[in-house]
Amino acid sequence: MRHDGRNIKELRPVTIETDYLVHPEGSVLITVGQTKVICTATIEERVPHFLRGQGKGWITAEYSMLPRATGSRTQREASKGKIGGRTMEIQRLIGRALRAVVNLEALGERTLWIDCDVIQADGGTRTASITGAFVAMTMAIAKLQDEKQLPIFPVTDFLAATSVGIDENLGAILDLNYVEDSSANVDMNIVQTGSGNFVELQGTGEEATFTRKQLNELLDLGDEGIQQLVMIQREVLGDIADRIGENLGSIL
Amino acid sequence: MRHDGRNIKELRPVTIETDYLVHPEGSVLITVGQTKVICTATIEERVPHFLRGQGKGWITAEYSMLPRATGSRTQREASKGKIGGRTMEIQRLIGRALRAVVNLEALGERTLWIDCDVIQADGGTRTASITGAFVAMTMAIAKLQDEKQLPIFPVTDFLAATSVGIDENLGAILDLNYVEDSSANVDMNIVQTGSGNFVELQGTGEEATFTRKQLNELLDLGDEGIQQLVMIQREVLGDIADRIGENLGSIL
Amino acid sequence: MRHDGRNIKELRPVTIETDYLVHPEGSVLITVGQTKVICTATIEERVPHFLRGQGKGWITAEYSMLPRATGSRTQREASKGKIGGRTMEIQRLIGRALRAVVNLEALGERTLWIDCDVIQADGGTRTASITGAFVAMTMAIAKLQDEKQLPIFPVTDFLAATSVGIDENLGAILDLNYVEDSSANVDMNIVQTGSGNFVELQGTGEEATFTRKQLNELLDLGDEGIQQLVMIQREVLGDIADRIGENLGSIL
Amino acid sequence: MRHDGRNIKELRPVTIETDYLVHPEGSVLITVGQTKVICTATIEERVPHFLRGQGKGWITAEYSMLPRATGSRTQREASKGKIGGRTMEIQRLIGRALRAVVNLEALGERTLWIDCDVIQADGGTRTASITGAFVAMTMAIAKLQDEKQLPIFPVTDFLAATSVGIDENLGAILDLNYVEDSSANVDMNIVQTGSGNFVELQGTGEEATFTRKQLNELLDLGDEGIQQLVMIQREVLGDIADRIGENLGSIL
Amino acid sequence: MRHDGRNIKELRPVTIETDYLVHPEGSVLITVGQTKVICTATIEERVPHFLRGQGKGWITAEYSMLPRATGSRTQREASKGKIGGRTMEIQRLIGRALRAVVNLEALGERTLWIDCDVIQADGGTRTASITGAFVAMTMAIAKLQDEKQLPIFPVTDFLAATSVGIDENLGAILDLNYVEDSSANVDMNIVQTGSGNFVELQGTGEEATFTRKQLNELLDLGDEGIQQLVMIQREVLGDIADRIGENLGSIL
Amino acid sequence: MRHDGRNIKELRPVTIETDYLVHPEGSVLITVGQTKVICTATIEERVPHFLRGQGKGWITAEYSMLPRATGSRTQREASKGKIGGRTMEIQRLIGRALRAVVNLEALGERTLWIDCDVIQADGGTRTASITGAFVAMTMAIAKLQDEKQLPIFPVTDFLAATSVGIDENLGAILDLNYVEDSSANVDMNIVQTGSGNFVELQGTGEEATFTRKQLNELLDLGDEGIQQLVMIQREVLGDIADRIGENLGSIL
Repeated sequence: MRHDGRNIKELRPVTIETDYLVHPEGSVLITVGQTKVICTATIEERVPHFLRGQGKGWITAEYSMLPRATGSRTQREASKGKIGGRTMEIQRLIGRALRAVVNLEALGERTLWIDCDVIQADGGTRTASITGAFVAMTMAIAKLQDEKQLPIFPVTDFLAATSVGIDENLGAILDLNYVEDSSANVDMNIVQTGSGNFVELQGTGEEATFTRKQLNELLDLGDEGIQQLVMIQREVLGDIADRIGENLGSIL
Repeated sequence: MRHDGRNIKELRPVTIETDYLVHPEGSVLITVGQTKVICTATIEERVPHFLRGQGKGWITAEYSMLPRATGSRTQREASKGKIGGRTMEIQRLIGRALRAVVNLEALGERTLWIDCDVIQADGGTRTASITGAFVAMTMAIAKLQDEKQLPIFPVTDFLAATSVGIDENLGAILDLNYVEDSSANVDMNIVQTGSGNFVELQGTGEEATFTRKQLNELLDLGDEGIQQLVMIQREVLGDIADRIGENLGSIL
Repeated sequence: MRHDGRNIKELRPVTIETDYLVHPEGSVLITVGQTKVICTATIEERVPHFLRGQGKGWITAEYSMLPRATGSRTQREASKGKIGGRTMEIQRLIGRALRAVVNLEALGERTLWIDCDVIQADGGTRTASITGAFVAMTMAIAKLQDEKQLPIFPVTDFLAATSVGIDENLGAILDLNYVEDSSANVDMNIVQTGSGNFVELQGTGEEATFTRKQLNELLDLGDEGIQQLVMIQREVLGDIADRIGENLGSIL
Repeated sequence: MRHDGRNIKELRPVTIETDYLVHPEGSVLITVGQTKVICTATIEERVPHFLRGQGKGWITAEYSMLPRATGSRTQREASKGKIGGRTMEIQRLIGRALRAVVNLEALGERTLWIDCDVIQADGGTRTASITGAFVAMTMAIAKLQDEKQLPIFPVTDFLAATSVGIDENLGAILDLNYVEDSSANVDMNIVQTGSGNFVELQGTGEEATFTRKQLNELLDLGDEGIQQLVMIQREVLGDIADRIGENLGSIL
Repeated sequence: MRHDGRNIKELRPVTIETDYLVHPEGSVLITVGQTKVICTATIEERVPHFLRGQGKGWITAEYSMLPRATGSRTQREASKGKIGGRTMEIQRLIGRALRAVVNLEALGERTLWIDCDVIQADGGTRTASITGAFVAMTMAIAKLQDEKQLPIFPVTDFLAATSVGIDENLGAILDLNYVEDSSANVDMNIVQTGSGNFVELQGTGEEATFTRKQLNELLDLGDEGIQQLVMIQREVLGDIADRIGENLGSIL
Repeated sequence: MRHDGRNIKELRPVTIETDYLVHPEGSVLITVGQTKVICTATIEERVPHFLRGQGKGWITAEYSMLPRATGSRTQREASKGKIGGRTMEIQRLIGRALRAVVNLEALGERTLWIDCDVIQADGGTRTASITGAFVAMTMAIAKLQDEKQLPIFPVTDFLAATSVGIDENLGAILDLNYVEDSSANVDMNIVQTGSGNFVELQGTGEEATFTRKQLNELLDLGDEGIQQLVMIQREVLGDIADRIGENLGSIL
């Protein structure tokens, strides 16, 4: 039994509140246990310099935490005047992950700006950001299609993320909260599609290592978690989920 | 009648949700119409360099907007690598306003960090920040007193803020939303105590001017708005409001 | 009697030396007691991005202090690599104030750059900057008109600024020097037109508050000070003052 | 057959030239095909603030590329005034990887600064950096032990890194050069110990995904590459390699 | 004859107004033709980190130009957020030059901050800065001695600077103004002591070269100019000049 | 005799390894004693903004040191977020020096980027950079001519640099290493053409001065050193050296 009462294969309670803000083209508040992230999607009708004239879109992400999302106050990166390495890593990961399930040619010469702002943090903020951002992005794209601006629906599959890790006493566990994350020997973030393929796999032993056998246990746990998260995404997306389903069907 | 149906003396609906986040010593979500601001208060057990050894506390504030708090996406100040002039002005204003109703000697050598993060903007974000931050700060200070760390309660009066302005057609109006703010000839932010005294008065004619008579109309309107806001603060503060009341009584 | 011998309603000696530098289109050295500011106006034949193609001009200001303008040396903002909040507030105020008395359409697609560099500081540097910058700007615009580049004279009124405050012993006082400013309970900067209308009003109680009655006393004092400053501006502007006068007449 | 004539399981030629520079405590030039990286290790007799007084050491890394390490000139990060996201990711990875095979308590309150400067780049610069930095670090630590400043030898295992990927035509391939890296669907960096355990695993599908079966093929390939790299490290370390061997023995 | 009527060996008119500002320990306004620089000297009772505990003082300089010191407006370095290469070069030169004529041990553990702010520029701003800064510094040091804080007078010699150059038509010329500087093939800045020794020599051919013979002509010209500048320094320093004279005598 | 056994007129051993890197248009590794610098030349087919449309090329240089080029580790300028004054001075010097021997009109609207990266430092890094960069630049330009992109060969003369200085015991010495540089009273960098003309002369007394007679001794020594360096450049340039020779002949 884990300190919050969960078993080792159990996700924390997850909710995704859609249309959370009035201004963005897509927005959600995703809650994973005590972790809360506002994810928004903005459509800009042009692409970065390096992509101009190629008839292809782009997806980019930014990530930030409110100073008191955390137990003790974290200094704002705007006050420091620069973005830290951890933030950079996370926002590059979010953008890369989402691009793997969007047909960028079908998106046209547009940029999707994804903003993930953590208002409360209890571990797993980057994976919650990806899971929430996928919904905000898909809703923004659906709106674009409803306005007849897209020939085909460019989202090719569902996408969700979770963390797994190795606890000294419990072994492999799913969806680590802050306390678990701090004490785990190994920490792995898994981003997978609804079809079960990997998009991103980042396993790290901080002052520790892990074996091939442990890796396989972690991947099995992660797969179960991702499937549950995709189920929740399907539900909140309602009809829009069918558009992805059709894309998946046409692939088969 | 104003475009949103209010009369010229009417505030937008205001709610203040307390204990909005689990980590900070004090936190609220203040909603003024469509404007939503998360205000948190953090207590740090030391003061800035220039105050050390003087037996006196300090209050400082930071302000920020999520990129999609606004109709079109605003670039993050962290990405720009510097804080803009408007943000600087606002965060200096918030800190200065709160310091006017706190007995800094009674606070002891502590810093109160106030963070105001606008998650949705529709005009009046700086005044909503002050009104909300007052509640978050007061709750954090009350907690400190409950922990027997303060001899007397250092909050000396209530404090709230609102905006008033001059519309070309309607004349003086209270609590401008974004559309009204953009078209007003004169815009004034008023910060007042519960006792009705001014803490801060900032009136600006952007490419326009205003007369002494107009100023008086604006101040009358502001006074009414502030009184309603203080009423709401009293209500959400509950018992804690009485501690301020005692301070006010002892002044009389 | 104030510590420098003035009565409470008395300005410090004010001089404005025009054409102080050889290069700028307009330049003055304004002296208010010990406070000395070089104000220059530069005309650039284009406007910022957000105004292009609208047939309208722009006025923007920058403010700085020499390191030893002050009693102890202040670190340069260029060395720090960023502009502080106080500087930002002041330069935004100067620009906004000047724009209120210039017909930006009549100016055409030009930017007026106002630079206020304090070479010696003894309180009231921002108000001296506005009063001096008005003269430098007006002379630069007059030169532009003399070169047949302006159909009508775009300066619509005189503009000057002063400070007022509340001293614990003396009550309301006019034109605070550094010592008075440091000990005043309330500090207010007033920017007014020659016609007596307000352009900007910024009253602040630093760890203090003020009543409506006190506000009225401060505004009365300010009005007297502004009128004297406008008189001095008229004098140094000579014939150019008449062009403003004609604009004022045509309004009436 | 790959475009440079290698088979799919073949590393590029690897050499590690030790004591490459005269000043650092440890330094190598590692060459992996056309990729060349100078790795140095510096010993500082103190630890970062967050570790002081814990009797534990620290390892931190910095990574950079000369402007013409690449085919077209890359702007210096010093000229831009900030370090990019890719650089941040890589230097965090190098530091984390090395810390996994060093007993930080045994190192004592010292910081090891690892500098990896790419003088020529042809893919795999981050994995070459780790493989080379391990040697530079180990030599610097050995020198410290020779000076009687370390009770036990703190390096607990060998450590090397390589990349694997999936080519559309060839399937899984080992040690991608720049051309292969640019066209691969999936790119994975593997950091392993001499004992064959994982320290870090980073697999990414850029606009693509990969299956569990493909993952296993990649991991098998990586394992073979790592073993060859460790062999080369053993050889260049000579006697010093035995000190690691003893540590490994004592673990068994 | 030069375009401003001077002969090739003639300095522009030079004046040095002492005690120009009320706050600094030493301050002058130096005028060399149209070039005007405010030079101030500030005494700080501590030294930079690298000198602490060595019983030795330090002299450091900062240099800046007002935006409209020049014919067209120059962007402020504070606005750019960084100091340019030309400014860096000049402020390092000023500091180094002054340190050559001050006995830093005799100064004690103090820092002299020299600030040179160009309010009007017409060529030769760095040499005017050195010539003026020497006077401001010497007066600040004399004041320190008057306050019985210095055992011996630490200024060991006079110090002045001028520029020489090669004009295509006129050959070697002394004290170039802006127009001459822009068209000269060779430009040389000479810093010399009152005794005629070199402190700094910086000769540059911008897209041109110069011979040994030309160098000698330039050095002869420079020597004459420096002697006249030292004469002016002696005069404005009055009695203080004698303290330097005594030091020079005691060396002989 | 000097501490490394050289006589006072002796250069350290110098080698220039050409085509040191595979990517740049020109590249060398220059070794002067223990000092080692990688110099590369990059050709960009456009010029900076201020030169556009003038049918003229530009040469610009950047300079950097690896953190452990030096005895103790130097913090990276990229990590500090800004380039220091010393680096600025050096890179401006390198660019200016090279421009003096290139016919920029004959180069056409191209920019030559020169990068000098010191991988090991033992004094004289700026002069080694100039001597090495001249070779890298000339080879890049020759390649451009071989590709029929240049009507005439734009390099007009050889260019090399060395340092001279005054040692308290030995008097004037040539080519100072780090130890000598640190203790010298006077330090002078000389940049000369193959024809023996000066391009740049920078003599500095750090807390010391020097006489005209000493200057002449230094210049004589420098001249001898430069001639030897040019001889080495001729040799490594081989046939390309003749193209410069022809230019020199045509001048005569």
